[in-house]
Amino acid sequence: MPHQPPHMSPEEFRRHGHAAIDWIADYWASLDDLPVRSQAAPGDVRRLLPASAPKAGEPFDALLADLDRVVVPGLTHWQHPRFFAYFPANSSPAAILGDLISSGIGAQGMIWATSPAVTEVEQAVLDWFAEALGLPADFRSDGPGGGVIQDTASTATFSALLAALHRASGGEARRHGLGDAGWRVYGSSQAHSSLVKAAMMAGLGEDAVRSIAVDPETQAIDLAALEAAVEADVEQGLTPVMVHLAAGSTSTGAMDDLVGAGRIARAHGAWVHVDAAWAGVAAVCPEHRAHLAGVESADSFVTNPHKWLLTTFDCSTFWVRDRAALTGALSILPEYLRNAATESGEVVDYRDWHPQLGRRFRAIKLWAVLRTYGLEGLREHVRSGVALAALVADLVRADDRFELVTEPSLSLVVFRLRSGDEQTMAAMEAVNASGEAYLSHTTVEGRAAIRLAVGSWRTTRADVERTWRALQAAADG
Amino acid sequence: MPHQPPHMSPEEFRRHGHAAIDWIADYWASLDDLPVRSQAAPGDVRRLLPASAPKAGEPFDALLADLDRVVVPGLTHWQHPRFFAYFPANSSPAAILGDLISSGIGAQGMIWATSPAVTEVEQAVLDWFAEALGLPADFRSDGPGGGVIQDTASTATFSALLAALHRASGGEARRHGLGDAGWRVYGSSQAHSSLVKAAMMAGLGEDAVRSIAVDPETQAIDLAALEAAVEADVEQGLTPVMVHLAAGSTSTGAMDDLVGAGRIARAHGAWVHVDAAWAGVAAVCPEHRAHLAGVESADSFVTNPHKWLLTTFDCSTFWVRDRAALTGALSILPEYLRNAATESGEVVDYRDWHPQLGRRFRAIKLWAVLRTYGLEGLREHVRSGVALAALVADLVRADDRFELVTEPSLSLVVFRLRSGDEQTMAAMEAVNASGEAYLSHTTVEGRAAIRLAVGSWRTTRADVERTWRALQAAADG
Repeated sequence: MPHQPPHMSPEEFRRHGHAAIDWIADYWASLDDLPVRSQAAPGDVRRLLPASAPKAGEPFDALLADLDRVVVPGLTHWQHPRFFAYFPANSSPAAILGDLISSGIGAQGMIWATSPAVTEVEQAVLDWFAEALGLPADFRSDGPGGGVIQDTASTATFSALLAALHRASGGEARRHGLGDAGWRVYGSSQAHSSLVKAAMMAGLGEDAVRSIAVDPETQAIDLAALEAAVEADVEQGLTPVMVHLAAGSTSTGAMDDLVGAGRIARAHGAWVHVDAAWAGVAAVCPEHRAHLAGVESADSFVTNPHKWLLTTFDCSTFWVRDRAALTGALSILPEYLRNAATESGEVVDYRDWHPQLGRRFRAIKLWAVLRTYGLEGLREHVRSGVALAALVADLVRADDRFELVTEPSLSLVVFRLRSGDEQTMAAMEAVNASGEAYLSHTTVEGRAAIRLAVGSWRTTRADVERTWRALQAAADG
Repeated sequence: MPHQPPHMSPEEFRRHGHAAIDWIADYWASLDDLPVRSQAAPGDVRRLLPASAPKAGEPFDALLADLDRVVVPGLTHWQHPRFFAYFPANSSPAAILGDLISSGIGAQGMIWATSPAVTEVEQAVLDWFAEALGLPADFRSDGPGGGVIQDTASTATFSALLAALHRASGGEARRHGLGDAGWRVYGSSQAHSSLVKAAMMAGLGEDAVRSIAVDPETQAIDLAALEAAVEADVEQGLTPVMVHLAAGSTSTGAMDDLVGAGRIARAHGAWVHVDAAWAGVAAVCPEHRAHLAGVESADSFVTNPHKWLLTTFDCSTFWVRDRAALTGALSILPEYLRNAATESGEVVDYRDWHPQLGRRFRAIKLWAVLRTYGLEGLREHVRSGVALAALVADLVRADDRFELVTEPSLSLVVFRLRSGDEQTMAAMEAVNASGEAYLSHTTVEGRAAIRLAVGSWRTTRADVERTWRALQAAADG
């Protein structure tokens, strides 16, 4: 036998493991003093790395040291208390430790039989979470529906589209391809870019996506325009296969009318997919469920605990009313995965619920979040984000140089400088370049706007006020 | 402001973090005494969980206690030293700690600008790893190609197919859909099931995949049959878009002839995708590169460090010769992601290299593996697996009741009982049910066979011998 390679001994694992935990705690403690946005230029990080992998192994401490020297200066700190760009990617201590346990267990849950706990804990936690959000009982795993953890909402939307095509084609699509049925997909002009990407990947092409106008005020889908587009397509012999509805758009947090749009979709047999990637988790608070009114008509629903709800990426929770459509589109059964449990029909094999075969035990991190915070803790977290966004909106309203672009949506505030697009972008860029806070932009009705998305568990009132002072200074500047 | 929810304090995070590390070390220490395959029946785990999420938060210790009570009995232990089923999902201490750091940093790397180090460390590590495997320089990031970490080889194969369709259609597919070009995809009858799944997802349907016969002896693709199939399709006006080649099939580790098959594919303009999900990493050893001869002709190549090479799932390394085909198929650019770095063309935005938008800092775990083991350590690890598999093959040859089905392939041995399929399956099932070791099955040329895949860093010669004794006893029984 060859010499054994230098695997860490149990004692070394404990020692380096404790050091890694401490590195993270120290990194977090340093965040407040670091520029939020990395000041690295292209190539700055790469330049600090050797050209090749080392021949001989190095101690783990060398890696920890290089994190500070090489990596940290090249990071934009998504866990920084003044990170307000895009949407948060909140990674809480409980979720991190839950996910660490998953790595230690290192089990594969592609089918029930490959490690039953991976599937059963996930089913239980998804049922818990559906209940916590007030989702319809149809999404529970004890009926014909069920939930699954996907990596991202993009993948969930793609999976929903494949399920929709499977149902609409009566199973022909998976066997013979899309054919020339003229499938059409609908979403508002504010729908997430993953809708067009899903259509591209599914073989429909960008042209198959009808971009529906929105109400200029609310940025929500215009129901009359949706109905007209669907009817015009049907008139021409095309087939509406899916309607994508945003319960919280990326740009402004706009809320499509799920009741009205769902009615139009159902009237034409189209699958209703609700993309609540960011805003869905707010429904843990009974007072923040208005945007989900009508979700009963959805065929599928996705929301990302890995955004606002404290769960380390990746954790995108996805439910379907009829899992047969989903697994019909995605099932495969090679010989080596045949087993008695699958054949009994008593178990669920998650391999058939998403594009990937392999899957890690992602439910542990969500389980850890739900248990250690409890529903009350999660509600306090969401309420804190909403309250801080309301504070931002008040600050905007109180300064004549600024104006709100849309009404605040939960923890997202979209505003601009009255003086114009250039001034708006310049003020944002000045704050971002200073490292004091990090914001991102969008365009609304053709005009530039600043997005400020609260949601990190570290963000305090003081962080919001400090960011606002920086924006005010930039507006002066 | 509402009351702050119960986030862990830095001191609590350190304390619970150290406890989580210790839980893993204790779990690992207990593995040898646990049945490898879970003895849970459907519903056994679920039954131990409450019906709903708790209202009030619980201490993290409660979760750790439930791991032992609820989760561990429901696990099939993929990290067990006598786990020989499927392929290993090796999660080494270094990789686990690297991934833990990634969770603590919690950065999103969808584009360079959202956290430059995520992209630049990944590019560097993929270049290191390509060099370590002896892959063509065309795959390096400093030319028109490059590498990226995908979640699984299934996603990589799907991405390769989308790139192939993009190239073959001159960009028409992403815009207008697949049309009626009669795209055809080729792989051997032993190709991974993800090939058919990719064709289903891409809108081609199962029918578009030509399943090519294999040599009965080697189980490698029959070149004459491949050529005949391609030519017959071209004759009929169909278009060969991709040839999928297995450098190590799932069933028996069969190695397709990349030189010969690549020549046929190129002669008809088809994309060559090499799926070396399991066996590719063996090429860290110069003496284990024979199966990659001809990889120079590949348009894309995938291998999974998360199988044999000690890197915690998910980490599937994927390279393309021409990244423009890949990003052409998958690029999207919503307003909120527009930025100066992207527009300068100086950086790579990995969002356009795979289906997902969000992406975590997965490169850290592979970086940790490459650095702490060094190339020498990785070679010793691979050699140890190959040597243990050779030992298994010797044991099979030395017992008249058993026979090898195919010659051992690297660390995979496929064998059976001479007495027949029923006896073969019964012997495997007896060992699996005993919990002593865990093996999986396949069929080769219509007959049942047992697969024994070595590869865990915990597996010793004693584990292999003990497993063999259990198989011998089962053969007697």
